[in-house]
Amino acid sequence: LLWHRENTNIKWSLPAVCFVWQLSMIILFGVFVRYNEESDTHWVDYRKEKNITSDIENDYYFRYPSFQDVHVMIFVGFGFLMTFLKRYSFGAVGFNFLVAAFGIQWALLMQGWFHSLDYTDGKIKIGIENLINADFCVAGCLIAYGAVLGKVSPVQLLVMTLFGVTLFAVEEYIILNVLHAKDAGGSMVIHTFGAYYGLSISWVLYRPNLDRSKHLNGSVYQSDMFAMIGTLFLWMFWPSFNSAIADHGDGQHRAAINTYLALASTVLTTVAMSSLFEKTGKLDMVHIQNSTLAGGVAVGTAAEFMLSPYGSLIVGFFCGIISTLGYIYFSPFLEEKLKIQDTCGIHNLHAMPGVIGGIVGAISAAAATNTVYGDLGLENTFDFTGPFAKRVPTIQGGYQAAGLCVALCFGIGGGIFVGLVLKLPIWGDPADENCFDDEIYWEVRQVFFFLLTFYRFFSIKAIT
Amino acid sequence: LLWHRENTNIKWSLPAVCFVWQLSMIILFGVFVRYNEESDTHWVDYRKEKNITSDIENDYYFRYPSFQDVHVMIFVGFGFLMTFLKRYSFGAVGFNFLVAAFGIQWALLMQGWFHSLDYTDGKIKIGIENLINADFCVAGCLIAYGAVLGKVSPVQLLVMTLFGVTLFAVEEYIILNVLHAKDAGGSMVIHTFGAYYGLSISWVLYRPNLDRSKHLNGSVYQSDMFAMIGTLFLWMFWPSFNSAIADHGDGQHRAAINTYLALASTVLTTVAMSSLFEKTGKLDMVHIQNSTLAGGVAVGTAAEFMLSPYGSLIVGFFCGIISTLGYIYFSPFLEEKLKIQDTCGIHNLHAMPGVIGGIVGAISAAAATNTVYGDLGLENTFDFTGPFAKRVPTIQGGYQAAGLCVALCFGIGGGIFVGLVLKLPIWGDPADENCFDDEIYWEVRQVFFFLLTFYRFFSIKAIT
Amino acid sequence: LLWHRENTNIKWSLPAVCFVWQLSMIILFGVFVRYNEESDTHWVDYRKEKNITSDIENDYYFRYPSFQDVHVMIFVGFGFLMTFLKRYSFGAVGFNFLVAAFGIQWALLMQGWFHSLDYTDGKIKIGIENLINADFCVAGCLIAYGAVLGKVSPVQLLVMTLFGVTLFAVEEYIILNVLHAKDAGGSMVIHTFGAYYGLSISWVLYRPNLDRSKHLNGSVYQSDMFAMIGTLFLWMFWPSFNSAIADHGDGQHRAAINTYLALASTVLTTVAMSSLFEKTGKLDMVHIQNSTLAGGVAVGTAAEFMLSPYGSLIVGFFCGIISTLGYIYFSPFLEEKLKIQDTCGIHNLHAMPGVIGGIVGAISAAAATNTVYGDLGLENTFDFTGPFAKRVPTIQGGYQAAGLCVALCFGIGGGIFVGLVLKLPIWGDPADENCFDDEIYWEVRQVFFFLLTFYRFFSIKAIT
Repeated sequence: LLWHRENTNIKWSLPAVCFVWQLSMIILFGVFVRYNEESDTHWVDYRKEKNITSDIENDYYFRYPSFQDVHVMIFVGFGFLMTFLKRYSFGAVGFNFLVAAFGIQWALLMQGWFHSLDYTDGKIKIGIENLINADFCVAGCLIAYGAVLGKVSPVQLLVMTLFGVTLFAVEEYIILNVLHAKDAGGSMVIHTFGAYYGLSISWVLYRPNLDRSKHLNGSVYQSDMFAMIGTLFLWMFWPSFNSAIADHGDGQHRAAINTYLALASTVLTTVAMSSLFEKTGKLDMVHIQNSTLAGGVAVGTAAEFMLSPYGSLIVGFFCGIISTLGYIYFSPFLEEKLKIQDTCGIHNLHAMPGVIGGIVGAISAAAATNTVYGDLGLENTFDFTGPFAKRVPTIQGGYQAAGLCVALCFGIGGGIFVGLVLKLPIWGDPADENCFDDEIYWEVRQVFFFLLTFYRFFSIKAIT
Repeated sequence: LLWHRENTNIKWSLPAVCFVWQLSMIILFGVFVRYNEESDTHWVDYRKEKNITSDIENDYYFRYPSFQDVHVMIFVGFGFLMTFLKRYSFGAVGFNFLVAAFGIQWALLMQGWFHSLDYTDGKIKIGIENLINADFCVAGCLIAYGAVLGKVSPVQLLVMTLFGVTLFAVEEYIILNVLHAKDAGGSMVIHTFGAYYGLSISWVLYRPNLDRSKHLNGSVYQSDMFAMIGTLFLWMFWPSFNSAIADHGDGQHRAAINTYLALASTVLTTVAMSSLFEKTGKLDMVHIQNSTLAGGVAVGTAAEFMLSPYGSLIVGFFCGIISTLGYIYFSPFLEEKLKIQDTCGIHNLHAMPGVIGGIVGAISAAAATNTVYGDLGLENTFDFTGPFAKRVPTIQGGYQAAGLCVALCFGIGGGIFVGLVLKLPIWGDPADENCFDDEIYWEVRQVFFFLLTFYRFFSIKAIT
Repeated sequence: LLWHRENTNIKWSLPAVCFVWQLSMIILFGVFVRYNEESDTHWVDYRKEKNITSDIENDYYFRYPSFQDVHVMIFVGFGFLMTFLKRYSFGAVGFNFLVAAFGIQWALLMQGWFHSLDYTDGKIKIGIENLINADFCVAGCLIAYGAVLGKVSPVQLLVMTLFGVTLFAVEEYIILNVLHAKDAGGSMVIHTFGAYYGLSISWVLYRPNLDRSKHLNGSVYQSDMFAMIGTLFLWMFWPSFNSAIADHGDGQHRAAINTYLALASTVLTTVAMSSLFEKTGKLDMVHIQNSTLAGGVAVGTAAEFMLSPYGSLIVGFFCGIISTLGYIYFSPFLEEKLKIQDTCGIHNLHAMPGVIGGIVGAISAAAATNTVYGDLGLENTFDFTGPFAKRVPTIQGGYQAAGLCVALCFGIGGGIFVGLVLKLPIWGDPADENCFDDEIYWEVRQVFFFLLTFYRFFSIKAIT
């Protein structure tokens, strides 16, 4: 039996895409992007004009530590979390690197046009907050990568990111600016959108014969350890993620506390569920690597609200349970019944907790009162100023819920469209029997691999 | 020969403990824990009232970067440092994760009752400093875990942590508040207490036949590399650890400098000793992974004092020597004569350097003068205010020494008590021949492990 | 055939060097080093005197987050980047640790004498900026280590570092103080100097029979993954590196933005070139691990200038191309024609991008105008004050170029001198057939290594 081998040669397409897109970035940045007043040498004049007493009040010092933590989450966190597959670690961490490096540039432009355009000169003015938002935007695309890990070519990933960032910028503008919903940690804007975007793409790209490479669709001891590096850096720095663009002062402070607590709670219920569903109570690394993070996703929207410490613990408690149950029951169901192959289980880590996070945000916004927040505090937290000066918490709750729907629609709709684009037979994606295999796109030095080769040899024979 | 197999089924006990304790946390947080004035939406009013000119003076901005570094030390530092065993890496990093996630919640409550209780409404008010202190508290329990690594069940670890955090909060209150001793980096409060707590537990749980699993009680090349990730993140972020809760301004600044220098010095003497005691001067990874950190432990108490840069170097110099000698001579002695099996050698890394740190702190406090510190500086550094306004440095030195004794007593006494509790035959701990083996508590994918299995097969045959 | 075995016994030389040098550090620190006014307990008086309104204006809070990121780059970044060799990971991360721990102490003294000497009492006064500069200084020596990785003994590395730090401090003084060139991210001072220093040493130490250990001069799958940890932490934290000692406020802010963008651009062109030059467009991990960082090197000097966001992208664009071409064409040429064996390819990652960075810095300085910078901004950015009050941008450009030449001269001249010192047959360096092998200087536990031993056994037989 000789299977049809797809053409995975990307010798021209990958360099072409990289060069052309990077050149376009240079041209667009040349036309549009400049430093904002806090990163420009004119800051010294601006400081005097605005009567700012010290350089330390530059936004840079409010946000730089959080920015660096978010940056680590994007490149090491997401990158290493996906290295769990036994021989797709290069693809996990390497393509994550490529996609994110492109995505942040495109995001600076797309988000800049919507949020940071200076109408006096038509330029996008960037500062530290733009860098954080670009990282956030890319996070959505990296979540989507989790669903198709091992089954697509790097060119497809770049296309996914180009469209993903574009869709993200639009839905973000609608949710945050038009609907004036709040979403500091991005439960809706990042996680719900990103997860359904990825799942929809994976649904369109369904591979009925994926089990031909099932011998590679699993972990080994060392690859599970590398994945734990990703898990822990995501887990530890999540308080920075949810607080990075929150309000100065109490806003950032509270977002960090809420996230810290929600994540702690999630770990215990994840361990409990994992143990409960295995024979003799053993733990499964898949759950520890993923479900322990669900609380951070779900507390994203409400992180800067007065959710209360115990409120955060409750959110984490349920998300650990739901996410672990997702891995045990829902992932097989998705694959068999709905034909969605979700390599990393992003439905359990991002989709469900993201939706929960949107709902928690809507409810806690609707329930906000002047007694709890204080008059000024309520206005500050929800930005009930300018055109939104007359909005009240219950109405805000409704707009939060509307925001969640927008994220879902953009994720599902955009994902189906992009999935169809990626179905074109020009992208160099691997054949079913070559999925999850670094050898297709990477020079792999062998030595230790002869073991795996033996293993593969026998598995393939068994199938044939 | 058929050995007795212990019942390591934790299918009911582990989920039960996790769920019940997490629910208790939620209830207790609901009753007791609220945001403090810097993380509450009323901050805007508080700022005006206290005449604080900028949001940047929120304690969050003084401590958040250090907090995140400490957080990394707890979860990646301690977690990966313990992955050196060839097949207990899941247990090292996974149970470290579980224990710390529970411990920080319980610590927020225990430390909150002692230190952050608002008597006007009976609530614990938390902010960033509480999160750091909770991480510190858990560090004591994770040090103790090092002594029993591979020999206990996760349920036992949770019990150890429950009691450990409780004991920690009490001894900390006595040392810092009653005795008014200073201990910014926790040489006494964290390291001395944690190490003797763990060693005492290990003494009570002594296993005479532990050599039945000695084939697993060692490292392989890759596991040593993972452990170096832990070592380096602990080493690099230790300046943040010792400065995290030091006084704003010069206090944090000085604590970071002292720790940076002490650790640098330790590396050189550790390498020297390691090389001196091996044939042909080869280095031993065990020493590099552990003893290089001893200087950070020993400079903990005095980190915010005017120890002088050269004083820090001297402390690091001797700790590198003593700690490495501990691994070479003292650990075998502890195991053979005192019946204390100390998997990670915490006696060399935490116990001895911790005691040295307490002594250095007492001496340098007693030697403090107005000339060196300045009048205001002396008052600020040692908090000679309120009821302690009349205390002088020599007296302070005595109280520092008393603090060290309290830490020792709580560590040893508490450890013996908790050890006896853990000796009950209900906790699902592994049999002697199953120690240091991830397969007991984790689903382990095999592939590479057939090598280890062969090895184990032949070792066991040899013993039988 | 019996090869001559070099004497690699370092049982006396390594401990002796470590002890004697560390003792010297203690004595010199005792005589010379004290806390500066911001880390001394007299800060409280100083604050009043200088009318500083809040502790947050202590330089510590401006620079500590960047300092910790730089610290991670030095110890985890450089250390893990060099672990790519299949069995020299202990040497990579361990000797990096040793060398850096010694180097930062010696750098505090050397740089202190040149930059932080208080002439009123003859003491070096240190604070957070000195710690960052010491880390920077060591970075130069660690770059040099990359050229000789696997071919020298730890004693040789310490000697290299002793001389390297000394040379660094002198060239830095000439470039920054005498020529008054700007070099925030050290393209010239750190990268150009460090790379040519290492390459020159490697040239003097040329080993014609190095192919006797070529079976070990390559990577395996796991070692490539460990190296990616180093790559990513360098890549992510490079914005902190280039901004760490930039001017407060807009200076640090702009340096971070420029570096972030240059690095993103580099990733895309590196991937493009790597794919373009491999059969079927596969990617090579060597390029991804190294060339993706070239943009950070090349934007170092100009990072705090008004380079513009698109200017940074352009720099990164060309550096990704040049650096990858370097690995493909230039490294073999260097080895075969110029007799320079460059284990890590530092010529491609540091030397060429460093020189480019110096040139970019000179051009962008010469092109600075009052229109773009503002009058005050120009003065602030280039420190046109005091004795340099009359300097204009075009002249500054010339001095920048002169600075680049100084860095080159010190690197090449110093490297040749130190190379000759290291050629003395007293340092315990390995024989040609033992290069790149951890077993020479480390206790290595075997188990997994029997595979490698087989491999080596057959390779050596084949050569014989």
